[in-house]
Amino acid sequence: MIQGFRFGGVCAGIKKNTADLALITSDLPAAAAGVVTRNLFRASCVERSAALLPGAGIRAIVANSGNANAIAGAEEVTRDARMAAAAALALGVDPRAVLTASTGAIGVPLPIVAIEAAMPQLVSSLNTDPAVVARAIRTTDRRDKIAHRDFRGAQGTARILGIAKGAGMIHPCMATMLAFVLTDAQVAPDELDRAIREAVDESFHMISVDRDTSTNDAVYALANGMSAVRIDGASAETFRGALAEVLAELAKAIAGDGEGATRRICVRVSGAKDARSARLVARAPVESNLFKAAVFGRFPGWERFLAAVGARCAQLDLPLLRDRVSLTIDGVTVFRDGAPSGATAVLSDQAESVYELDLGLGTATATAWGCDLSYEYVTINAETKLARHAGGAPDAAPVRGQR
Amino acid sequence: MIQGFRFGGVCAGIKKNTADLALITSDLPAAAAGVVTRNLFRASCVERSAALLPGAGIRAIVANSGNANAIAGAEEVTRDARMAAAAALALGVDPRAVLTASTGAIGVPLPIVAIEAAMPQLVSSLNTDPAVVARAIRTTDRRDKIAHRDFRGAQGTARILGIAKGAGMIHPCMATMLAFVLTDAQVAPDELDRAIREAVDESFHMISVDRDTSTNDAVYALANGMSAVRIDGASAETFRGALAEVLAELAKAIAGDGEGATRRICVRVSGAKDARSARLVARAPVESNLFKAAVFGRFPGWERFLAAVGARCAQLDLPLLRDRVSLTIDGVTVFRDGAPSGATAVLSDQAESVYELDLGLGTATATAWGCDLSYEYVTINAETKLARHAGGAPDAAPVRGQR
Repeated sequence: MIQGFRFGGVCAGIKKNTADLALITSDLPAAAAGVVTRNLFRASCVERSAALLPGAGIRAIVANSGNANAIAGAEEVTRDARMAAAAALALGVDPRAVLTASTGAIGVPLPIVAIEAAMPQLVSSLNTDPAVVARAIRTTDRRDKIAHRDFRGAQGTARILGIAKGAGMIHPCMATMLAFVLTDAQVAPDELDRAIREAVDESFHMISVDRDTSTNDAVYALANGMSAVRIDGASAETFRGALAEVLAELAKAIAGDGEGATRRICVRVSGAKDARSARLVARAPVESNLFKAAVFGRFPGWERFLAAVGARCAQLDLPLLRDRVSLTIDGVTVFRDGAPSGATAVLSDQAESVYELDLGLGTATATAWGCDLSYEYVTINAETKLARHAGGAPDAAPVRGQR
Repeated sequence: MIQGFRFGGVCAGIKKNTADLALITSDLPAAAAGVVTRNLFRASCVERSAALLPGAGIRAIVANSGNANAIAGAEEVTRDARMAAAAALALGVDPRAVLTASTGAIGVPLPIVAIEAAMPQLVSSLNTDPAVVARAIRTTDRRDKIAHRDFRGAQGTARILGIAKGAGMIHPCMATMLAFVLTDAQVAPDELDRAIREAVDESFHMISVDRDTSTNDAVYALANGMSAVRIDGASAETFRGALAEVLAELAKAIAGDGEGATRRICVRVSGAKDARSARLVARAPVESNLFKAAVFGRFPGWERFLAAVGARCAQLDLPLLRDRVSLTIDGVTVFRDGAPSGATAVLSDQAESVYELDLGLGTATATAWGCDLSYEYVTINAETKLARHAGGAPDAAPVRGQR
């Protein structure tokens, strides 16, 4: 069990009959670091929290999953500050010790009075089970997303716990969802900052659900030192490795739970000339609607996969020699040395299909994750949208394609 | 009527019971220029034709719409050359006077024998009606796409005629479909090259259906001089303007006929700092699945529109000041000076919705076109795919989302 963190979640009424307000507290002031969305319409909560990081003395993260409080006008900054202040007051800490996170409807005023009213109940709900936070930060997620790793340091065993939410508006650069990573190890803010940035590059920056980058996405890491395990020169690498594993597990969970997804797609690139091109090539297929729709139809779509790779390399001027390219799908090599092999791949009934692309140019590798493109993705983003704003549009019935 | 061009189309059996082989001939050797896809897996036909351009002496374009002859292995180059040779033989011209174009299934051997067998019938079908070509090059297109403009030169009136196909795999950089642009004006190859490149930048490079760039897309322009209208210093600008109008009309037709589209989206950006950022910003919303799904649900999706713009500007380091941004949807200003105006836009029943984004930074403008994202897009790219390869996969039933 991770030491010195507590978790709470309640329904504040931002959404109907669903937990929508979450709180994480640290018994001791924690070192903190984070990576946030670069979207120029990013929300006040992201700007406010990022300005506090990397830093020390953080005591809490308060998050709501009903309203993004983004692109919401002049009141946006004030309401975000009130959300932090309400949590700080209820916990008896400084508002600058509280990070805020919001996700949900954009462009709609944050119902701050409801949030303020729910705060005492939220604090009362604090307990040792992180699942209540995982549940309360979900939006279109179908599953809770929690991962953890234990690791040994000189002073004993410490733990890293990650909690994430994310299903749509998932795309690299950056950070594609909310993730809170907690550790009871003792980590300096700068080391925590370095570790979280490296881990994000290999995890959340390597998944895509729909190529859309949110206004609100953020990854925050807190380290409260309660385990007395110190992260220093000797143990830093072990810590970074464990942190990267936690984030990768969360990232894969997000890709597999992509809006409407019926299958996770894993793209492993090898033989790339350098790490940058390996990463950019690996992401190209999971960003292709055409390829993703083929996979939804249980078709391997190897030709669309390669077309997406070819387009990406042309667009970004990445090295590619057609004659050296090989592609293996779930163990069957369908394309070798620049030509179809004649073998037919069949997508299995597994939850994940693995595409292995060898570029034959060097030794760099990268792995990206995504999901297929289904009717359900359209439903979630066309019809749910209408349900949420019912009455807003006079002609609210979706115009369906002729099927 | 355009002078000196003839048009043919037949069913060669590449597709079932559908015209799939098209021919355009010029009675006189024509100046020719083109813009082709940069995809590194681009097809042999694209490489072969591009190598002949800009140039003179072109007599024909032969195109098939059943098989892309791309990523198809060692036979790909030979079969493309045989397609050109078969047309050249039937027409009694040099093979190097024939441009080839292919679109359709990727990674499947081109049925060249069927194409060769159909060639005499194709030549016999030549007549003055361009609609037969427009029909024979369609793939998932629901409508023929033809546009024309007359313009005055010193020697009289000349005509520009454009024929295009394109519905999916439509995305800038480049060229996103097949388009053949013919004129009976007399234009030097270099001038034609300049004119077509400029026009493509404002038209085909400004549409997106699904962010996927094809292996086969190409725009070819032929000028046979039959009208005796010479394009020179005095008339070049008029010619370029007319050519740009023809291409813009075709590009809009492609966007409105996007796979599964129920509505065209027009994004007009003004107040940009420079032309490049205006173009890149204008394309961002029509490349956002989230925004496009909202429009399919008849929801204006202004917040997703702005989120897409904010993400793009961050990603490409384009200038954006939130407080200067205004957005007007079908005449209703929903966002002004960085904040929601409180006004509610309602998408009309029109075939096109117009989004006007003012960045408030300068005087540059750009217009982009796209379409909504519907169930039908998924159907076309998941289920049609299966139908085409019926029997190829043992478990061919698409896994539908729970609806």
